[in-house]
Amino acid sequence: MPARPQPAPLETDAVIIGAGPVGLFQVFELGLLEARAHVIDALPQVGGQPVALYPGKPIYDIPALAVCTGQELADALMRQIAPFEPVFHLGQQVSHLARQADGRFLVETTAGTRLMARAVFIAAGVGAFQPRPLKAPGAAGLEGTHLLYHLPPPARLAGQRVVVAGGGDQALEWAIRLASATGHDAPACVTLLHRRDAFTAAPETVARMRALSEAGSLRLAFGPLAGLEAEHGRLTRLTYTGADGATQFLPVDTLLASQGMSPRLGPVADWGLAMERKQLVVDTEKFQTSEPGIFAVGDINTYPGKKKLILCGFHEATLAAYGALPYLFPGKDVFFQYTTTSPRLHRLLGVAPEAADDPPPASDGA
Amino acid sequence: MPARPQPAPLETDAVIIGAGPVGLFQVFELGLLEARAHVIDALPQVGGQPVALYPGKPIYDIPALAVCTGQELADALMRQIAPFEPVFHLGQQVSHLARQADGRFLVETTAGTRLMARAVFIAAGVGAFQPRPLKAPGAAGLEGTHLLYHLPPPARLAGQRVVVAGGGDQALEWAIRLASATGHDAPACVTLLHRRDAFTAAPETVARMRALSEAGSLRLAFGPLAGLEAEHGRLTRLTYTGADGATQFLPVDTLLASQGMSPRLGPVADWGLAMERKQLVVDTEKFQTSEPGIFAVGDINTYPGKKKLILCGFHEATLAAYGALPYLFPGKDVFFQYTTTSPRLHRLLGVAPEAADDPPPASDGA
Repeated sequence: MPARPQPAPLETDAVIIGAGPVGLFQVFELGLLEARAHVIDALPQVGGQPVALYPGKPIYDIPALAVCTGQELADALMRQIAPFEPVFHLGQQVSHLARQADGRFLVETTAGTRLMARAVFIAAGVGAFQPRPLKAPGAAGLEGTHLLYHLPPPARLAGQRVVVAGGGDQALEWAIRLASATGHDAPACVTLLHRRDAFTAAPETVARMRALSEAGSLRLAFGPLAGLEAEHGRLTRLTYTGADGATQFLPVDTLLASQGMSPRLGPVADWGLAMERKQLVVDTEKFQTSEPGIFAVGDINTYPGKKKLILCGFHEATLAAYGALPYLFPGKDVFFQYTTTSPRLHRLLGVAPEAADDPPPASDGA
Repeated sequence: MPARPQPAPLETDAVIIGAGPVGLFQVFELGLLEARAHVIDALPQVGGQPVALYPGKPIYDIPALAVCTGQELADALMRQIAPFEPVFHLGQQVSHLARQADGRFLVETTAGTRLMARAVFIAAGVGAFQPRPLKAPGAAGLEGTHLLYHLPPPARLAGQRVVVAGGGDQALEWAIRLASATGHDAPACVTLLHRRDAFTAAPETVARMRALSEAGSLRLAFGPLAGLEAEHGRLTRLTYTGADGATQFLPVDTLLASQGMSPRLGPVADWGLAMERKQLVVDTEKFQTSEPGIFAVGDINTYPGKKKLILCGFHEATLAAYGALPYLFPGKDVFFQYTTTSPRLHRLLGVAPEAADDPPPASDGA
């Protein structure tokens, strides 16, 4: 059987791997240099680790933002980069990265996205975030069928006994959505199982969950999950340890496990780039990896003095954008300009030109 | 005659030279490491070049701040560093910097401030901003007596014929204040001289100035200043070129010149630090100069890849703070922590501790 012909890849200036704060700001710095970017992320939304792991927790060390949450930071960066119209490919992971004969890079993802770019920026943080697998006995053989790490389409759980295991925002949001469902697609019953009666979700989310519990729409069970039992490959019940130490049984058709996310470096480790303790080695002039044209910014890189701080990644993304110019626009001179004074940058940013008789600052960029 | 005994210098962990955006953020990063800082600046206010030269102009490339003015940036940074209670010494320039026998640095200013610190951070931008001197014939001999570059106390101009030369915010603010003065200290008359009938000051300021002119409290004169004439060392009149090309005469007792600010590197150049084209050479691990314990951050430093951007200075200030730890707290281990999760940093920042059962993000700083 002949191989199915693949469509031609989308051509772009740059591919950014990772849509966390640093990957988003990479779009901005490339945009100021008139380079278009596509952004790939394993998560279903932008914002990276701060949004995936602690969207509501305050961050205090973004310069000139005395306090902001991870979600607010992502929102602010999305507003800032909007003029450059980045193209996002979310919920997919880079599966293949290879230099082509003409020097460009072919980037392919697990969702079949194919991109051809002149420079690649790896802003993958600690790796692609993936659901942490359930370790309980009996779990391994049921993954993907009766044990899921995501919320499936409603029809998939119609009439079933569903247990949601977890105590964070994601687990509670799933339990609330399922317990509120009505009509043909509603599950038969929904139970939220958590190791103890204390939740790390946002207080408003906990309150909504408790209201559903008091109304009888959602059952609560507390105690560590002990095991999953199956008959003929079908999940029938799970066991957990109750407050009195006795084993409790819970009948279940589908278990939705929300045990947090953990990062995996994934294929980045296989691209032959120089690494040091799971981080990509870069220089501090261009933040380029050992492979010309491939840059690494943010938590995934390492160099003398490195601190894993978002604000440092912003600087790295800036110098990486300039460092990539010879690959992005070979032979073209691009002059360094300030957003405060450059009419060219104002045009790119879509802001009104300044008054013609307003002189530029005396010594800006002298 | 014996030398007047000098008071003992104030002791502090760090001295920061320059209160621009990067100098202000240096306070923050030192504060997170529990180091106290004194900040010195030649300007009478904090905020550095963006505030001194273009306080109202939008800046577009501060990460996660899609747009802010120089004044807004300074205000935001002042709010962010407030918990660390920096001590400011404004309107004065460092005149002397010398290492003492015990390894610390004695820093003295033109205003007589004396500080003793274990580390020095030079965040002096393009240098200390000073009023641009008037180049007109006759000006040099009258500086400081009849030609001033600042607004003196009101009594100094009582009953005088005053001319303010300039067309920016500062010149108009001076003219407005003097033309609005009443009582014993009021000048006899106030004239605003500018090269042409177009002003770069904020529109509201121009409107207030024009209202005073229409009310007869302020005279306006337009044309390039040609020279200053004096009798027995006393300024008597100045000449300027009118619209018709003819020389015009303006009787005057005191001329206040506001011709903008220009930076001077000043004594930084005399401290024996390695320089390259007027910039201080630093490494990219600690942003340390050629002198151990003296760091340079922001526009004043240079290294391969350097871009003179505020956001890069934020990164440099961060690594410099960590780089200075061996000088600030010899022999003490200080562990890297995140503002999102560290109870110690929350205490320093004066924010409420997080709930005790709120687990830290799975992979933060792993």
